[in-house]
Amino acid sequence: MDKLTLIKVGGKIVEEPDTLAVLLQDFASIDGYKVLVHGGGRSATKVAAQLGIESRMVNGRRITDADMLRVVTMVYGGLVNKNIVAGLQALGMNALGLTGADMNIMRSDKRPVGEVDYGFVGDVKEVYADVLAMLIRQGIVPVLAPLTHDKQGNLLNTNADTIAGEAAKALAKFFDVTLVFCFEKKGVLRDENDDESVIPQLDRASFRQLTEAGIIQGGMIPKLENAFQAIDAGVKEVVITKASELGKDGGTRIF
Amino acid sequence: MDKLTLIKVGGKIVEEPDTLAVLLQDFASIDGYKVLVHGGGRSATKVAAQLGIESRMVNGRRITDADMLRVVTMVYGGLVNKNIVAGLQALGMNALGLTGADMNIMRSDKRPVGEVDYGFVGDVKEVYADVLAMLIRQGIVPVLAPLTHDKQGNLLNTNADTIAGEAAKALAKFFDVTLVFCFEKKGVLRDENDDESVIPQLDRASFRQLTEAGIIQGGMIPKLENAFQAIDAGVKEVVITKASELGKDGGTRIF
Repeated sequence: MDKLTLIKVGGKIVEEPDTLAVLLQDFASIDGYKVLVHGGGRSATKVAAQLGIESRMVNGRRITDADMLRVVTMVYGGLVNKNIVAGLQALGMNALGLTGADMNIMRSDKRPVGEVDYGFVGDVKEVYADVLAMLIRQGIVPVLAPLTHDKQGNLLNTNADTIAGEAAKALAKFFDVTLVFCFEKKGVLRDENDDESVIPQLDRASFRQLTEAGIIQGGMIPKLENAFQAIDAGVKEVVITKASELGKDGGTRIF
Repeated sequence: MDKLTLIKVGGKIVEEPDTLAVLLQDFASIDGYKVLVHGGGRSATKVAAQLGIESRMVNGRRITDADMLRVVTMVYGGLVNKNIVAGLQALGMNALGLTGADMNIMRSDKRPVGEVDYGFVGDVKEVYADVLAMLIRQGIVPVLAPLTHDKQGNLLNTNADTIAGEAAKALAKFFDVTLVFCFEKKGVLRDENDDESVIPQLDRASFRQLTEAGIIQGGMIPKLENAFQAIDAGVKEVVITKASELGKDGGTRIF
């Protein structure tokens, strides 16, 4: 099968013109078929504040009421997505910006209200990657915004890491997929105070060992569990690295 | 060739949930291949005002400075476009929301500064409809936002009537295109005080006659001149009608 690289970038990188320009150059340097998944939380928070709407986060996740859904639809689906698309077009990549509603590529259910009511947040239920795969083979570079829909007319806010993972799994039927999570650090670190202590490779056994030894801890554990789930679902490898290392051989490779 | 209906809707219709729901139902009732082009000026003005940005219009056209470009990117490319896409998906139409930057379907040049500096406004230079035509044949329903790009990384605000006309002309190579402009009135009126006085058909000769007689006047003249230009460029017919008449045989047919 042909190789496909699916890159997830979030944070400031895609939201500031200077760092975005560098990212798009780095993304351009990747050979073969590719897909970009972006976040945009900082911009959403900023636009919401300008509109007098308060951002509320629980467990690092945004509470999305009707007003906030309008904001993320504008910011993720419009502002961030279309600027990336225009930037990639300028570099000769035939980008296509998509939410999960576009071509029904990602259908989700509104998250049930539990201890927390996250509001208009979607948990992905189905991914339709056939048309997407065909477009990719024709040279189109999909740019996915962190929005899905319920097929009943409602858009839903969906975590960008989840979008990346689900898209990677669905595309694994058509391509040898490498899923890359861009991160502030160069990879999973053996010593969090030493940015150069990147663990180059992780399989399940070494992950278990390093977790039990307390070397891998905190928010990195669910991130890596998601990575192994993607591997189980057919993704060839998952890489955790820094955006500036794209196209190089750095980072932590999970397989 | 297969028939394709390209509908342009603007104004309040697409911007209020109730009228949008009715429009999407009407759009669903149209047989065969179809494309929807939307505006969103009222929402842009509203969001801009909420952000403390003043909307300035000259000759009915929006002055688009950098701040306003951000607003229209959010509103046209995100809010309006993605809500239409989600609404069409709920009705079983496989909608795909696009700006001119997506798949590079519409490239424009920033309008030169003349008597008026319109700012980041694009005049369409090239339309690439090949991939679009292929997607339409596969059952995809494109939904076009009034934004283009200059292929140098910049999005540009572009009049929705222009987007509709340019898309119709480019798609005329692949389909028998009917271009429908939805309007507040049921069509071109013989007597502007009588909403039922719709002129059912107009060819160039009758257009000239009615203009000379002062029956067709004002803003309708450039609208009809554009319609005849589309006909000259291969569009099969142009219809000016009311959104609620979609799928019926009303309105003014220009050929």
